[in-house]
Amino acid sequence: MAKEITSRAENYSQWYNDIVKKADLAMNSAVRGCMVIKPNGYAIWENMQAQLDKMFKEAGHVNAYFPLFIPKSFLSKEAEHVEGFAKECAVVTHHRLKNDPHGSGLVVDPEAKLEEELIVRPTSETIIWNTYRDWIQSYRDLPLLINQWSNVVRWEMRTRPFLRTAEFLWQEGHTAHATQKEAIEEAEKIHEIYARFAEDFMAMPVIKGRKTENERFAGAVETYTIEALMQDRKALQAGTSHFLGQNFAKAFDVKFLDQNNQEAFVWATSWGVSTRLVGGMIMTHSDDEGLVVPPKLAPLHVIIVPIPKPAPAINEVAEKLLQGLKAKGVKVKYDHDEKKRPGFKFAEHEMKGVPIRIGIGKRDLERNVVEVARRDTKEKTSVPIDGIIDYVETLLNDIQTNLLKKAKGFRKDHMHTADDFETFKQIIESDGGFVLAHWDGTQETELRIKELTKATARCIPIDNLQEEGQCVLTGKPSKERIVFAKAY
Amino acid sequence: MAKEITSRAENYSQWYNDIVKKADLAMNSAVRGCMVIKPNGYAIWENMQAQLDKMFKEAGHVNAYFPLFIPKSFLSKEAEHVEGFAKECAVVTHHRLKNDPHGSGLVVDPEAKLEEELIVRPTSETIIWNTYRDWIQSYRDLPLLINQWSNVVRWEMRTRPFLRTAEFLWQEGHTAHATQKEAIEEAEKIHEIYARFAEDFMAMPVIKGRKTENERFAGAVETYTIEALMQDRKALQAGTSHFLGQNFAKAFDVKFLDQNNQEAFVWATSWGVSTRLVGGMIMTHSDDEGLVVPPKLAPLHVIIVPIPKPAPAINEVAEKLLQGLKAKGVKVKYDHDEKKRPGFKFAEHEMKGVPIRIGIGKRDLERNVVEVARRDTKEKTSVPIDGIIDYVETLLNDIQTNLLKKAKGFRKDHMHTADDFETFKQIIESDGGFVLAHWDGTQETELRIKELTKATARCIPIDNLQEEGQCVLTGKPSKERIVFAKAY
Repeated sequence: MAKEITSRAENYSQWYNDIVKKADLAMNSAVRGCMVIKPNGYAIWENMQAQLDKMFKEAGHVNAYFPLFIPKSFLSKEAEHVEGFAKECAVVTHHRLKNDPHGSGLVVDPEAKLEEELIVRPTSETIIWNTYRDWIQSYRDLPLLINQWSNVVRWEMRTRPFLRTAEFLWQEGHTAHATQKEAIEEAEKIHEIYARFAEDFMAMPVIKGRKTENERFAGAVETYTIEALMQDRKALQAGTSHFLGQNFAKAFDVKFLDQNNQEAFVWATSWGVSTRLVGGMIMTHSDDEGLVVPPKLAPLHVIIVPIPKPAPAINEVAEKLLQGLKAKGVKVKYDHDEKKRPGFKFAEHEMKGVPIRIGIGKRDLERNVVEVARRDTKEKTSVPIDGIIDYVETLLNDIQTNLLKKAKGFRKDHMHTADDFETFKQIIESDGGFVLAHWDGTQETELRIKELTKATARCIPIDNLQEEGQCVLTGKPSKERIVFAKAY
Repeated sequence: MAKEITSRAENYSQWYNDIVKKADLAMNSAVRGCMVIKPNGYAIWENMQAQLDKMFKEAGHVNAYFPLFIPKSFLSKEAEHVEGFAKECAVVTHHRLKNDPHGSGLVVDPEAKLEEELIVRPTSETIIWNTYRDWIQSYRDLPLLINQWSNVVRWEMRTRPFLRTAEFLWQEGHTAHATQKEAIEEAEKIHEIYARFAEDFMAMPVIKGRKTENERFAGAVETYTIEALMQDRKALQAGTSHFLGQNFAKAFDVKFLDQNNQEAFVWATSWGVSTRLVGGMIMTHSDDEGLVVPPKLAPLHVIIVPIPKPAPAINEVAEKLLQGLKAKGVKVKYDHDEKKRPGFKFAEHEMKGVPIRIGIGKRDLERNVVEVARRDTKEKTSVPIDGIIDYVETLLNDIQTNLLKKAKGFRKDHMHTADDFETFKQIIESDGGFVLAHWDGTQETELRIKELTKATARCIPIDNLQEEGQCVLTGKPSKERIVFAKAY
């Protein structure tokens, strides 16, 4: 089975597609650019959602739900925002179909044309800030800390499962504050939550930074980002948190009376992560045998396989393990299918990324042990049945820790610095990875670097070392290095 | 505050709208027929989701996600299905906006017209069965037990928050089976889960039954329904589970090889409940003072109010209660706002349906008691602080039980039988409620009854008493009574 996966060395892009397919995570649908998220893939997203939702709520946020559709005119109200989204949106123009009087089947009913077209939300700032105008009168209504779990649509021309799809699932937080300071703190707090989630749950190390003006969200004053490094040494923007200033408050006329009874515009943030994280997780940890999932996000932690097939003595031990592990909150299954050989099962569960496999064979039972194989390192160990429950619990933690350590090592190996453009270009073209380089701070230079190397400015790291230097392209003075990479 | 609510007696419909508004549950949006679900309303839906999701998973289902859009041609493949949905669907015709060259702002770019229009899903049978064709080859791929949490759009002309909106949130289960028997059992199992959820969690008694042919889902062979009675004595269809036969398998050519290597079409079910349940919950329990929420679905169980305002001794007891109750999983808050009087707070928390209010006053403290008020009966009791945690836990259960009992009593009071049409008509026109009557089994009679009385056939109860009788309209022979009512 594993042989069906193209190796990373051979064709990285095909390797990714193979894993998505063979691990039953997702597939393309009949609708251009839209994917079907299969149960194995959706279960990972559900685990991500549950954890993120908990973190948002612990930080004082509540969930709400706003309409799927946005009146066309709303989109135009924030000048940069419309620039960013008008060219890639699904437009609803009619509200009825009818049978063609000329007999050619179902057609759009021209009499059911909408007075104003509706846009399927690409993001919800406009409809939400139009609503907040009714919700906010005084400083007592602030802060408003709201999140929404929803689907959004951006008509992308080139799509890939999870990483870039026309429709995707995400959460979008939209908060309103009385002061600039508080709004910036909120954007930073979420930035921190995203980074913690990426490292502690996805085992995916990220660089925390601010976007350059050119890479900012359409309508934001400041965009905070977490950037991860994939195994092809390209960067993945994994989550962004925006300080929106008063841009949307002004566009939608959202004012409040402050404690001194003075009228002022409200300050805003918005922030989101999406099903793209599933793609990031796949690309961070998986190998040529298939998917690797960090235990904290795994739909299934342990698979028990009878060797060579179910038998009373084996089933009895399996049942004991199932009960013991379930009692500890470990998600475990017994693969008692009699029609598949152990080797086939091993490959199948490796492919699907189950973190631990326990093999129970007759000979092992005579010695009162079982064989434990970990997915990340593929090491196998004989473990006494008596201590197996504790062993599994510890091993799940070890795997989680090891995946992060390994990913950090990988990133370290591909973190470069470049002080002249030749070196910069050569690194980007050969190894890739993150390149720390001085930059003169102009959009012009940033775009020229992109043109020449395909590398983009990923971010200006938080707490960046301040050092004198010269822009890698223009030689102009610079006070800090920023992170460049080719990116998804 | 409560005075702002219209009484049920005065104007039931306005009462409902007032509650939705004053309890901060939802509001109309700028998009026709689409509502904004506010945090207080969404939290109730989240609790419903969590419980239903648990019940579906315990019954062996997994979640997945299918595209928002359905190619127009898919809709036409099942003849009855298209009849049911083509007239009320949002149609996406373009994928880009552009600036009008004539300067009138943002317009649809005519060059970005889709080759085939996309329908925003009104329900997902078609796109899902088109996908299942790839997933199902042999009996080993069956059963497929899949659920999806999603938003759907049906372009309704007359909308009401939660009860009927153009966009709504729901879950839709879509299962595939090797045999007719197994598919029918699945539809019945879900029907049972819906009824159990309605009674055990929403405290909303329901009649379980089958729909008449006329009231069936478009494309179903059998529709199972749960029907609840609202306080205006109109029925609410609260959830449906459909046995789809092989209709969608045939429309989308989904066949499998059975154990004897014979090719056969797959058997199907689909089933759904939606944010309409929130409307049903509101209408079942609320009163003229505001929302009433069953404890099992309440976002907040207990509100603690200092009387008349926070003070060190009061805060200390409040803190003790907060900790003790939270440790027991009770959701509790302390309303220490110094700017609002107790009376105002009482009215506010009553309005929002918090099941239990605990008032802590100085004089009470001298006697080591607090005042506990329950939202459902409005009874107040002095309770010793020592036993307060247990008292609250028991009381939450009592309230849950009492709400169901009360709702069952109400339903019993408005459950009628009619043996002639004059009586039938008179009951429907005066008291309303459910009317059990004989019917000759024809669509014609059913529609005529609707025309004459506005009452529709709600369902044919499961395990219905078989008795000889005459159709209430035509006098033709009948073997059982079915349930009629005016309905939402």
